Amino acid sequence: MREAFSEQLDTMFQDLATICGDVETAVRLATEALLRGDAETAERVISGDVEIDLARERVEDSAFLLLSLQQPVASDLRTVVAALRMVSELERMGDLSVHVAKIARLRVPNLAVPDAVTPLIERMAAVAEDMVVRVSKIITDRNVDDALALVHADEEMDQLRRASFAELLSADWSHGVEAAVDVALLGRYYERIADHAVSVANRVVFVVTGEHPGAVDR
Amino acid sequence: MREAFSEQLDTMFQDLATICGDVETAVRLATEALLRGDAETAERVISGDVEIDLARERVEDSAFLLLSLQQPVASDLRTVVAALRMVSELERMGDLSVHVAKIARLRVPNLAVPDAVTPLIERMAAVAEDMVVRVSKIITDRNVDDALALVHADEEMDQLRRASFAELLSADWSHGVEAAVDVALLGRYYERIADHAVSVANRVVFVVTGEHPGAVDR
Repeated sequence: MREAFSEQLDTMFQDLATICGDVETAVRLATEALLRGDAETAERVISGDVEIDLARERVEDSAFLLLSLQQPVASDLRTVVAALRMVSELERMGDLSVHVAKIARLRVPNLAVPDAVTPLIERMAAVAEDMVVRVSKIITDRNVDDALALVHADEEMDQLRRASFAELLSADWSHGVEAAVDVALLGRYYERIADHAVSVANRVVFVVTGEHPGAVDR
Repeated sequence: MREAFSEQLDTMFQDLATICGDVETAVRLATEALLRGDAETAERVISGDVEIDLARERVEDSAFLLLSLQQPVASDLRTVVAALRMVSELERMGDLSVHVAKIARLRVPNLAVPDAVTPLIERMAAVAEDMVVRVSKIITDRNVDDALALVHADEEMDQLRRASFAELLSADWSHGVEAAVDVALLGRYYERIADHAVSVANRVVFVVTGEHPGAVDR
């Protein structure tokens, strides 16, 4: 019984890592679509999101079955509940990639992002994507140090967000209101992807240590 | 045992309704701060958010205790897991109110929202606040019809969001980039509050019927 439970839990975490891989693809393709003004790639992200939603439902169903049939307590219970939350966060990261792809699609054949801020948006996207890649590994390895490192990694994202606001609110901004609104919303979406990545890493820390990251002193 | 469980579950739903009441206050005060350019009220929302976070932790702890000690199955299990999710959604609604309050604070002594779009933002805020009020009642009564009605109520929010984009991207927009960015982000925050309200209502439908709203035919 105990061994079966542990195997089912491992399978659930493998599923979470797979979903995280799909999210990584979604973030990468959405950014490609955005920076190239590529409607086809944008469509791929938008229509592909249903797969992430279905995968989420499968994880939820198996978590629910585990809770019903195995009645876990203590750290096992904590792990199943954390998995339920992690899968919600991953699904939201997929949704946010869809939002990026939709802005890309809306502006085709033009680019949503003016040249002047392309490096900033590119960097935001790279930070977000890197965080998703690291979260995949963190889910697989359940390594607390890696998870704690990620918790502090979104500081660059905050700086980038501030830099993008400085850019688009400066007197030099010559790209009009539409581009400014697009850049502000894109910044918000990438920032939220990063927030969710941190949140998933937090939950891994909680699963492994039984403590929230603030309480884990390293 | 069974009776004690049912009492604890009722207490948990009362706590959820209380938190929802606090969110309602946060949305209302954030909007007041925004439309009046009132820094003091904005501060109240921002500093008050910690209470919502603490209340969330209390609900999470008691849900966890219930799962550990009472080992619920079937619909009881479904209800506890749903409560865990609902409290996350409510906390996010509080965070979004803080985002609104922060935009208000940033622009004091000016108003973030130009007169031309005040009616639109006012209406968005009213729709969001009304949805939060209805969700409080839905959590208390667990009334499926009310919950299903709310699921379709965010159509007006979508329309308002489109109308606000039409306004700020029109050739007549004379309020500059900063105001346009503020209005776009504010629209996003109110829309997300509405999304979360719908999501909480969805979960109530699931708790009561065991089916997701799409599957409940009324």
